[in-house]
Amino acid sequence: MGFSYGDLVVYGGSGCYDLAVEISARLSVPLSDRDVIVYPNENIFVRLRDSVRGKDAFVIQTTSSPVNNNLMELLIFLDTLKRASAERITAVIPYLAYARSDKKDQPRVPITARLVADMIQIAGANRYITLDLHAGQLQGFFSIPGDTLTAFPLLADYMRDKQLNNAVVVSCDLGFAKKARNFAVELDLPVAFIEKRRSDAGAEALTLIGDVKGKTAIIVDDEVDTGGSMANAVKIVKEYGAREVYCCFVHPVLSGNAVEKLRPLPITEIVTTNSVKIPPEKRLPNMTILSVAPLIADVIRDVHEGRSVGELFKRYHGYK
Amino acid sequence: MGFSYGDLVVYGGSGCYDLAVEISARLSVPLSDRDVIVYPNENIFVRLRDSVRGKDAFVIQTTSSPVNNNLMELLIFLDTLKRASAERITAVIPYLAYARSDKKDQPRVPITARLVADMIQIAGANRYITLDLHAGQLQGFFSIPGDTLTAFPLLADYMRDKQLNNAVVVSCDLGFAKKARNFAVELDLPVAFIEKRRSDAGAEALTLIGDVKGKTAIIVDDEVDTGGSMANAVKIVKEYGAREVYCCFVHPVLSGNAVEKLRPLPITEIVTTNSVKIPPEKRLPNMTILSVAPLIADVIRDVHEGRSVGELFKRYHGYK
Amino acid sequence: MGFSYGDLVVYGGSGCYDLAVEISARLSVPLSDRDVIVYPNENIFVRLRDSVRGKDAFVIQTTSSPVNNNLMELLIFLDTLKRASAERITAVIPYLAYARSDKKDQPRVPITARLVADMIQIAGANRYITLDLHAGQLQGFFSIPGDTLTAFPLLADYMRDKQLNNAVVVSCDLGFAKKARNFAVELDLPVAFIEKRRSDAGAEALTLIGDVKGKTAIIVDDEVDTGGSMANAVKIVKEYGAREVYCCFVHPVLSGNAVEKLRPLPITEIVTTNSVKIPPEKRLPNMTILSVAPLIADVIRDVHEGRSVGELFKRYHGYK
Amino acid sequence: MGFSYGDLVVYGGSGCYDLAVEISARLSVPLSDRDVIVYPNENIFVRLRDSVRGKDAFVIQTTSSPVNNNLMELLIFLDTLKRASAERITAVIPYLAYARSDKKDQPRVPITARLVADMIQIAGANRYITLDLHAGQLQGFFSIPGDTLTAFPLLADYMRDKQLNNAVVVSCDLGFAKKARNFAVELDLPVAFIEKRRSDAGAEALTLIGDVKGKTAIIVDDEVDTGGSMANAVKIVKEYGAREVYCCFVHPVLSGNAVEKLRPLPITEIVTTNSVKIPPEKRLPNMTILSVAPLIADVIRDVHEGRSVGELFKRYHGYK
Amino acid sequence: MGFSYGDLVVYGGSGCYDLAVEISARLSVPLSDRDVIVYPNENIFVRLRDSVRGKDAFVIQTTSSPVNNNLMELLIFLDTLKRASAERITAVIPYLAYARSDKKDQPRVPITARLVADMIQIAGANRYITLDLHAGQLQGFFSIPGDTLTAFPLLADYMRDKQLNNAVVVSCDLGFAKKARNFAVELDLPVAFIEKRRSDAGAEALTLIGDVKGKTAIIVDDEVDTGGSMANAVKIVKEYGAREVYCCFVHPVLSGNAVEKLRPLPITEIVTTNSVKIPPEKRLPNMTILSVAPLIADVIRDVHEGRSVGELFKRYHGYK
Amino acid sequence: MGFSYGDLVVYGGSGCYDLAVEISARLSVPLSDRDVIVYPNENIFVRLRDSVRGKDAFVIQTTSSPVNNNLMELLIFLDTLKRASAERITAVIPYLAYARSDKKDQPRVPITARLVADMIQIAGANRYITLDLHAGQLQGFFSIPGDTLTAFPLLADYMRDKQLNNAVVVSCDLGFAKKARNFAVELDLPVAFIEKRRSDAGAEALTLIGDVKGKTAIIVDDEVDTGGSMANAVKIVKEYGAREVYCCFVHPVLSGNAVEKLRPLPITEIVTTNSVKIPPEKRLPNMTILSVAPLIADVIRDVHEGRSVGELFKRYHGYK
Repeated sequence: MGFSYGDLVVYGGSGCYDLAVEISARLSVPLSDRDVIVYPNENIFVRLRDSVRGKDAFVIQTTSSPVNNNLMELLIFLDTLKRASAERITAVIPYLAYARSDKKDQPRVPITARLVADMIQIAGANRYITLDLHAGQLQGFFSIPGDTLTAFPLLADYMRDKQLNNAVVVSCDLGFAKKARNFAVELDLPVAFIEKRRSDAGAEALTLIGDVKGKTAIIVDDEVDTGGSMANAVKIVKEYGAREVYCCFVHPVLSGNAVEKLRPLPITEIVTTNSVKIPPEKRLPNMTILSVAPLIADVIRDVHEGRSVGELFKRYHGYK
Repeated sequence: MGFSYGDLVVYGGSGCYDLAVEISARLSVPLSDRDVIVYPNENIFVRLRDSVRGKDAFVIQTTSSPVNNNLMELLIFLDTLKRASAERITAVIPYLAYARSDKKDQPRVPITARLVADMIQIAGANRYITLDLHAGQLQGFFSIPGDTLTAFPLLADYMRDKQLNNAVVVSCDLGFAKKARNFAVELDLPVAFIEKRRSDAGAEALTLIGDVKGKTAIIVDDEVDTGGSMANAVKIVKEYGAREVYCCFVHPVLSGNAVEKLRPLPITEIVTTNSVKIPPEKRLPNMTILSVAPLIADVIRDVHEGRSVGELFKRYHGYK
Repeated sequence: MGFSYGDLVVYGGSGCYDLAVEISARLSVPLSDRDVIVYPNENIFVRLRDSVRGKDAFVIQTTSSPVNNNLMELLIFLDTLKRASAERITAVIPYLAYARSDKKDQPRVPITARLVADMIQIAGANRYITLDLHAGQLQGFFSIPGDTLTAFPLLADYMRDKQLNNAVVVSCDLGFAKKARNFAVELDLPVAFIEKRRSDAGAEALTLIGDVKGKTAIIVDDEVDTGGSMANAVKIVKEYGAREVYCCFVHPVLSGNAVEKLRPLPITEIVTTNSVKIPPEKRLPNMTILSVAPLIADVIRDVHEGRSVGELFKRYHGYK
Repeated sequence: MGFSYGDLVVYGGSGCYDLAVEISARLSVPLSDRDVIVYPNENIFVRLRDSVRGKDAFVIQTTSSPVNNNLMELLIFLDTLKRASAERITAVIPYLAYARSDKKDQPRVPITARLVADMIQIAGANRYITLDLHAGQLQGFFSIPGDTLTAFPLLADYMRDKQLNNAVVVSCDLGFAKKARNFAVELDLPVAFIEKRRSDAGAEALTLIGDVKGKTAIIVDDEVDTGGSMANAVKIVKEYGAREVYCCFVHPVLSGNAVEKLRPLPITEIVTTNSVKIPPEKRLPNMTILSVAPLIADVIRDVHEGRSVGELFKRYHGYK
Repeated sequence: MGFSYGDLVVYGGSGCYDLAVEISARLSVPLSDRDVIVYPNENIFVRLRDSVRGKDAFVIQTTSSPVNNNLMELLIFLDTLKRASAERITAVIPYLAYARSDKKDQPRVPITARLVADMIQIAGANRYITLDLHAGQLQGFFSIPGDTLTAFPLLADYMRDKQLNNAVVVSCDLGFAKKARNFAVELDLPVAFIEKRRSDAGAEALTLIGDVKGKTAIIVDDEVDTGGSMANAVKIVKEYGAREVYCCFVHPVLSGNAVEKLRPLPITEIVTTNSVKIPPEKRLPNMTILSVAPLIADVIRDVHEGRSVGELFKRYHGYK
Repeated sequence: MGFSYGDLVVYGGSGCYDLAVEISARLSVPLSDRDVIVYPNENIFVRLRDSVRGKDAFVIQTTSSPVNNNLMELLIFLDTLKRASAERITAVIPYLAYARSDKKDQPRVPITARLVADMIQIAGANRYITLDLHAGQLQGFFSIPGDTLTAFPLLADYMRDKQLNNAVVVSCDLGFAKKARNFAVELDLPVAFIEKRRSDAGAEALTLIGDVKGKTAIIVDDEVDTGGSMANAVKIVKEYGAREVYCCFVHPVLSGNAVEKLRPLPITEIVTTNSVKIPPEKRLPNMTILSVAPLIADVIRDVHEGRSVGELFKRYHGYK
């Protein structure tokens, strides 16, 4: 008989407690009790209510807004679990902040994503699970093993069910070109690209490369942050003659007035996930939010039981 | 002739920019240009305007409110300096957050202060300078060398000049007893202690051990956070017959409604420092704020020039 | 079913073999055979007689006199266990030497306690168990998890049974003030403090702050080393009118002529533990030695079985 | 006056000795003498002929064919320099092998690029300099500082001088889309993309997205390895009506029969660099090889003198 | 009940696949499926066909010719297993390359053996198993636990069965003197030594110290590389009057024209092992190849089952 | 102009203060003031009297008797220098204890020499200098650079001056065979070996291999510890007919009653060094003690000035 880890215990951080509850329900494992206290001096304090000695502990904490507080809470959670002698500690991070600070593309700037990976390791994580990293290379920022999942198949399944005729996938950004292509392949659709170029006068000009005229355009990206690129993409595909527009993206960061930029636009449907919690006031009538809880729960189960996540991987993992 | 470091460059973090300006003036070294950008998605970004290759870089950043943002900014600053090839990097942290989370005094809690020390090192600091750590042992949380200064001599000098007759130093908390004694020795005054005890019914009872009757009580502590302990201390010394009350402490954290607790009390003078910036609305008429800028500037100068800080140490360093 | 560690194996170092035997008896687990050889050239050599592959190994070794030999033996033990492929290695250190060298309170001195913690980790320990560290912050010198126990509840139980009337707890040193308070709370007694101050002429003057007149004074400290402070404390409480004197402390280091200092004094009873072995010639007639073996054995059992030591913690662990 | 490193010493590895000679000439610093011996048992041995104590050492070694031998030689060189007490060691790697193994895009595969980065650090490098990494994120695989240069401006300058009318930049692969766009911006040309899709029957179909008809197509990529993608790209742009074809890429890996694939094609000119040495038999008549030696030499000079490479950076560094 | 590791999985590297097959058969555990791909650009790629999560994985890979490719393949294998979440990873290396580069015996040379040990650890190995290291001290280059076996008892058993009369063991090199003595003790034979000395004129002169006249000389060494020393040893013992000559060594590296040097010599029998694969064209008629597969298989079994390898050790392990 | 380290400062540990004084005189650099205090509880404490910021610090401390105290003092010295911000710290260890515990040659024993190397590094040493390590491979136990010197050329020069006729070098132990040969080469003498073998009955039998009859035997070893092997060697060479006997060794450990074993034997002269201090009562009339101070001083000078120690190396360094 083989190896078995300690009992599975799951903690929900305060950054995505609702999602953790949903994952816990799917796992049929109640969330473990813990106190997360923010003192008046803003110092975060974590206390676990039950023993975790010898346990296989997963802490689910996203690093969306308030970003630095959520990140610090995650790190403190990891330190607490380590010093409380958990046998194995997995950081489950549905949305990893700072992922775009992943290279020095100008002099004297940080690579914060590597810093964050180092901090997660030094705080005590033995593994990590995350979702649709901005660049797959971020896996290499960690030296601990991890599972990097993708929610694009969820989006693809949802879109396929619509049986759209005469559609085209449009990549919102050239850096996303290859993944947009993969999404298009899943849907058996052609692909087009938006190119942004700044003129000498500083004005920004968009070009659409590929063909959208008279078609249903499905604009894709990994995340929507301030909404500027996505809003411009919607406008440009309409200008180039798209008949109808869908927007698909995994992480609804929706910072600043992103929602206000998207609200007035002629978008048939915005399809995203709950990797980042969208507050009620930011939910638009045309927004569909798919849950990543089943996907994450299944991976936690597989990891805990030492089973292959290869099957899962075929569809949800890595997504080149 | 001996070793010489690269040119001195000094950066001010956004957590205590005013203090950094003051230190820079004292050093006659202008603060180096940098951009600290907080994107709409709350991700912090740092960019240095000038080359730091081969330089001896000091970044002055406190970790007071907003605590986690300031801490993260410090770490990103350090990563930036490291990747920009500074020759030596010193983190100057006038107030170190999370310093009270320094031991496991109940089951399953973190030791966040060690986590913070590890993060500062992994981010790239070669040295640190800090002021009045909650416990001297925190020096041992770092494996890099550092200078831990104390501002109590500043407070002592200020109080001594008042030539108070018939005064007594009162320790606000028993954990501060030894340092209160040291402060009393500097002023050549006796010392008394406040003991807090919780009754079975849960009520909190204070006792004053030592003699304050008819005397001027100088209540001391390292920091004032929510102000509860200090406010209670003022009341109890008055109850025990103190004639007049002074409050002395280094770090004016003053979180929550601390100021509201202190405002109505019969305190002759509150003497503190600018290790934490006090916003105008929290400044009381009876508050005196001494500047730690000269002290920090002198240490930066000594460290940069490879000179002993031993002389300084005698008065400002370590303060057992 | 959950995780289970390999079989429990317990080794006794030569620094506290008697205590290890006692712990082993309580655990009903015989001490494992090993050779500890000191060659004529003073090099220490350890050889385990039986396989420890996949085992959950505990090595009990104190670091009392001969301090450096015992410390080195501990480190060599850890290296031996690591290279012999034990699954998990716990260093059980009833008395941790160098714990008072825990901060730089003057220029150019070491922080040896951190050095010792680093050496214990690098030698191969995965966990540690220790007793009444001089400062709780020393837990943060380790990055591995550990259990820091306290024997003060043992002392408190013993004293409570005496049902002393009109008693007061006296802190031998201001650095111990908070823990003395806690001890007083357990016994529901008031607390007083001894302050040591050096005059300009270099003479040392003691003051007692608080009230002991006509009372039974219970002087407490974490350890008694050369006995000077404790002897002075006894004299001063008598001077201030104490009726009777008890001395309570966990670690009977009793170095130099400590015992000769204590012997002639009017102490009703000296209550301590066997965390450090007291040789027969140092045992005074009024000395009571409580055994820490049951406490340590219970923790080893809990740690081995992956059970919470939280219950134990409530009384014996951390003791703020 | 500021910091100065030890004397500059430059070593050439056997993987790119010619390039090292050229760099050395540009620097006016002769290559230092060393023996690189490959024993009959294939073990590589390095011996430095002169002292490097306190020196600022740069070792120029590419990791092109024979890849693993060259990589191992680099690592041994670094260990030799470290143990010979060089003050600072910079690994200059014009072409970094294994850079495409940078993420887990299927289950149970390595991230060899991170492994290589770790090995370079553990062997003793304090810094690295490299050229056109496959993905900018690889910078984050290192925790030491480094300079990642780009040779695309060299290629752009060369192409611009041709004053081609009616040209278009074509990205050979969608993963290169963003960099192709940047190249197009430098030349003030439009951009088009080639999409490769595998049919259900397994056949590979190429599509060109964008417009090349009647234009001069400049196909770009970071490297040409087996030549398959580039050859297909040439064919497809011709099929879509391109008038003339140029191929531009930095790293001429040209493994297997890459050259045979390119030779018969109607390519006006193949423009590449000497980051990888092209043996005479692989040089085609239409091939132009630009030298990266001046670029690398200038960076070595700047790094050695502690000067900013910011100016250089603007054109050659990072190239988003 | 004690600890149990995950299921045993065994991988064969391409450097010694035949040996891995033999070990696998002895273990009754089939080799796990994997792809080892060498791309046209010489980059090695490893992919595991089945999940290894929670498994106890052993990868058998020698580092004989092609040395650097085999070493790199081993490291990539380890990284793959680590990132695929194997519970424990053991590198089984029958022949460890670079073992002779184990000290600085001249200025400015590497200690490549330590570098290799560091690389094996950083790539992900938790343990190692190897055979007849050139110097026992190489065990100390690793900080992970390991089992260093010896095949000399295999050779001794084989030689003992011959019941040679009047024989003497001859050490091929003075650095091997102590191990030759041990081998002689096993066979209950005397020992003699060959001394190599270089004259001022640079000529090399051999001396035989001890007595071989009229005896059967059994020349021993740990490995035969270029064959020069062994060939000279054969000649010198014949010159000194040996009646018959046997050559015994564990590692048949046989690089360059080693075989051509040995072929014409009057050697009765060459006895070695399959720790390094001997290609058919290098097999001499008088060569006997003993298999180390049973020895390695037994150790893998013992390590996997957490049983003592002490019994095995007595004969095969460490061999002082 | 090149790099220059900070001013040279030299500290003498209490293990070999006399030697440090001698080295200091040779360097014309006075030993820096420091306090080394051993408290009554045996805890060692180090305090530096002067600033070492930016200095190039060398601490000379041997690890001979009392071994563990001296080792611990060295480590504490290193920590003190590190935290006092010395620019570079070199541990100068004339005799390194535990060097014979360098491999696992039986099950379940430590490799203490690696542990010691790790401790020296973690305590803060940037470099080390040592003398005649028991095995050259111990250099690989360190990952920091170091200089391993040999004093055998000192012994060789001294013996050569005697112009002995008809002499032979005899290796005291087979593990020293190769180094004995090297010593013989320096003196242009033949070499012989002593073999120790234990009979089945447990008795120890010595054999001499080679020829000493009528010759002057110079018995060599790296160190003499309990003196047993050396005493037996003297007896056996006399038995085999040596006319006269000299004993040469670097490290006079002389533990236990070593001197009593050597005193009565017919040894013409015992030639050794002061790498270990010989107390007056252990000095025999026929003992000649050569000083290693000039050798160590010259290396310190070269290392400090960043000059090659290659010239020195030729004779004193590494000595294969």
